[in-house]
Amino acid sequence: MRQSELFTKTERNAPKEEVSLNAQLLERAGFIYKNSAGVYSFLPLGWRVMRKIQAIIREEMDAIGGQEVLMAALHDKKYLKATGRWDVDVVFKVAEGAGKEPSFNLSWTHEEIMAEIATKYVSSYKDLPFAAYQIQAKFRNEPRAKSGLLRGREFLMKDMYSFHASEEDLMKFYHGMAVPAYKKVFGRCGLQAFVTVAAGGDFTISNTHEFQVASDIGEDTIYVCGQCGYAENKEISKLKDGEKCPQCGGIIKEEKAIEVGNIFPLGTKYSEAFNLSFDDEKGEKKYVVMGSYGIGVSRLMGVIVEKYNDANGIVWPESVAPFRAHLLALNGADGEYIYKTLQTAGVEVLYDERVMTAGEKFAGAYLIGIPWRLVVSPKIAENKVEIKRRGEKESKVVDVGEAVKMIMFSART
Amino acid sequence: MRQSELFTKTERNAPKEEVSLNAQLLERAGFIYKNSAGVYSFLPLGWRVMRKIQAIIREEMDAIGGQEVLMAALHDKKYLKATGRWDVDVVFKVAEGAGKEPSFNLSWTHEEIMAEIATKYVSSYKDLPFAAYQIQAKFRNEPRAKSGLLRGREFLMKDMYSFHASEEDLMKFYHGMAVPAYKKVFGRCGLQAFVTVAAGGDFTISNTHEFQVASDIGEDTIYVCGQCGYAENKEISKLKDGEKCPQCGGIIKEEKAIEVGNIFPLGTKYSEAFNLSFDDEKGEKKYVVMGSYGIGVSRLMGVIVEKYNDANGIVWPESVAPFRAHLLALNGADGEYIYKTLQTAGVEVLYDERVMTAGEKFAGAYLIGIPWRLVVSPKIAENKVEIKRRGEKESKVVDVGEAVKMIMFSART
Repeated sequence: MRQSELFTKTERNAPKEEVSLNAQLLERAGFIYKNSAGVYSFLPLGWRVMRKIQAIIREEMDAIGGQEVLMAALHDKKYLKATGRWDVDVVFKVAEGAGKEPSFNLSWTHEEIMAEIATKYVSSYKDLPFAAYQIQAKFRNEPRAKSGLLRGREFLMKDMYSFHASEEDLMKFYHGMAVPAYKKVFGRCGLQAFVTVAAGGDFTISNTHEFQVASDIGEDTIYVCGQCGYAENKEISKLKDGEKCPQCGGIIKEEKAIEVGNIFPLGTKYSEAFNLSFDDEKGEKKYVVMGSYGIGVSRLMGVIVEKYNDANGIVWPESVAPFRAHLLALNGADGEYIYKTLQTAGVEVLYDERVMTAGEKFAGAYLIGIPWRLVVSPKIAENKVEIKRRGEKESKVVDVGEAVKMIMFSART
Repeated sequence: MRQSELFTKTERNAPKEEVSLNAQLLERAGFIYKNSAGVYSFLPLGWRVMRKIQAIIREEMDAIGGQEVLMAALHDKKYLKATGRWDVDVVFKVAEGAGKEPSFNLSWTHEEIMAEIATKYVSSYKDLPFAAYQIQAKFRNEPRAKSGLLRGREFLMKDMYSFHASEEDLMKFYHGMAVPAYKKVFGRCGLQAFVTVAAGGDFTISNTHEFQVASDIGEDTIYVCGQCGYAENKEISKLKDGEKCPQCGGIIKEEKAIEVGNIFPLGTKYSEAFNLSFDDEKGEKKYVVMGSYGIGVSRLMGVIVEKYNDANGIVWPESVAPFRAHLLALNGADGEYIYKTLQTAGVEVLYDERVMTAGEKFAGAYLIGIPWRLVVSPKIAENKVEIKRRGEKESKVVDVGEAVKMIMFSART
């Protein structure tokens, strides 16, 4: 894409009303726009990143047999009434007209709807197991929404719901399929996530598991083993900093962390509420055993920015970068040939052909954070290009063909 | 995909509470689930169709330079207050807690938000023109939502917004880029859409244009020329059935029709409300001239079903079908080899390997409406397959390789 056609621009200064680094960088670089506290729009660069993250999630959910759906956002109150969650504080409610009592809530989670849908299709053990997932907006009336994409009132979630004939089958899927798939998702996004044992709730049959990324700005505290990676959320842990790991004897460390995913062995609470039952092999009626598996998709984008940045801006991992290459044409140099060559090679490239000082172009490129920066200028010999990875200090001047190869065959995240 | 793994099933009877054909067929075939009047969830087959329609729209919008964004769904009341639309009847409102006055509305349209975003990036004529588009859920409190996907209270829309330095530039984009792109979208979805001159509104500088698909169940009435395709909406038309076309002298016919798209030359009303201005070449301040361009994405799916069906079920055009081939293994026959061959050839195939009577499998396949049906059974010679197009009467028995070629090289919608 030609940068002169991109409708956003980078800004010199951070927005005053944002306190979180991810929001400051993403707004300055033109990735997101703040509509209200905790409510953001995704601009072209930001939406490109979001779609890459979504594609990674989709691939990993499909790989474990997840079937993608899109569920309603407007939920009749019957759903939350059925499980006693209608009066939960953070639920946004919607009335059908002025002066009327609310009759809908906005999707904050979809266990109820998914359980009701399943009643239509499940009657026998032969209809189980299966898993369905969705990637869509959810809403939560957060009183403090000051962390940019980390805690929104409107945010993108991936949720998967799985349905089983027994707890045993649920736990087989939960530990054998969902946990490894989640690790792959976070790893492909450039994040090391610890699987943390966390508190269950009214609606779970045992402890739940969180996926936590260590970060000084995290709202959670976890105890994590430096040797085997075993981790517990402080909320439920009896461990202490410096103690021995109960799994391997390594040293436990206390860390601040951000939750990027959370999985729940739900058991039969939702099935009972919606009479989601099946006949087992002996013809006996049983309730379906459910699990649910969430990833904060827009939060993930915020976490990546919190982890991957320097004094000059964002440093995107290649897997989720809005473009792989950023081509800057300085001081009237012509980059058309390289632009076309990169496109022909299938490299997504943002081509800065605007009339602007070299300093402004460099500052913008640092801020946007595309992995490979290519520069053409009157000082560089014909058919050569200066190439530099974002986040590394050294640049070098190479043949155009060599530069294209370096980008095409780089596999680092 | 193996049909035994698909969590939905087809149903013998139409749902009693649905009066529209599109909802009856889509629910029976397991494409959608009705959560409330006018509120549907998209199940795996339905979501596959939706994603194909979205991909077509995305390609055509990208081709005319549209930049994709995702905008907030939760809109602070400042937006609609600024344009006097806060009290529009169909706007769903959201309060931040019980007993509080609503402070948000749900996205029913995004002109206000897009105009505000543009103020951040537009200051000079050099920043214009550009166009941004979104594909996402919109909400409208329709009093009568009985037409399935044709008129929802929650629905998927594509909206594009364009920004120009002059009315002339707007109209050049409007007629030269948007109209042809829209025709391509509908054509690729298998629909003949008439471009219909329709009434403007408070917020438009002239007549608007609708894209109308002729249909007996349409809520609109249009006058359309049988010769050149010129069309007017009855609301503004002085034409009558049987009169001569003002463009070419052909015969005008009155038709019922469904609106699938609507485009608006907005002018400066939104720019004025949000002070979206720019300095022109002479340094004079002017308001940006806007256009907006909508397609009812989920409605499109409903319209396709209304147009493409027969007594046995849906007859999907190949471009938007959930799968291209439906392979039925009857009476214990083994279709694994053909299934793998089709997958290797890149043909999306649903493989019905369930234990079930041939009659049940045929009925389900008719209802789902996948374009190519392949049958293997003990009666058919080894390495042969019975092939039949949905909507055609004749089937024939051919070599497996021949069948794969027929599907791969068919280009019909």
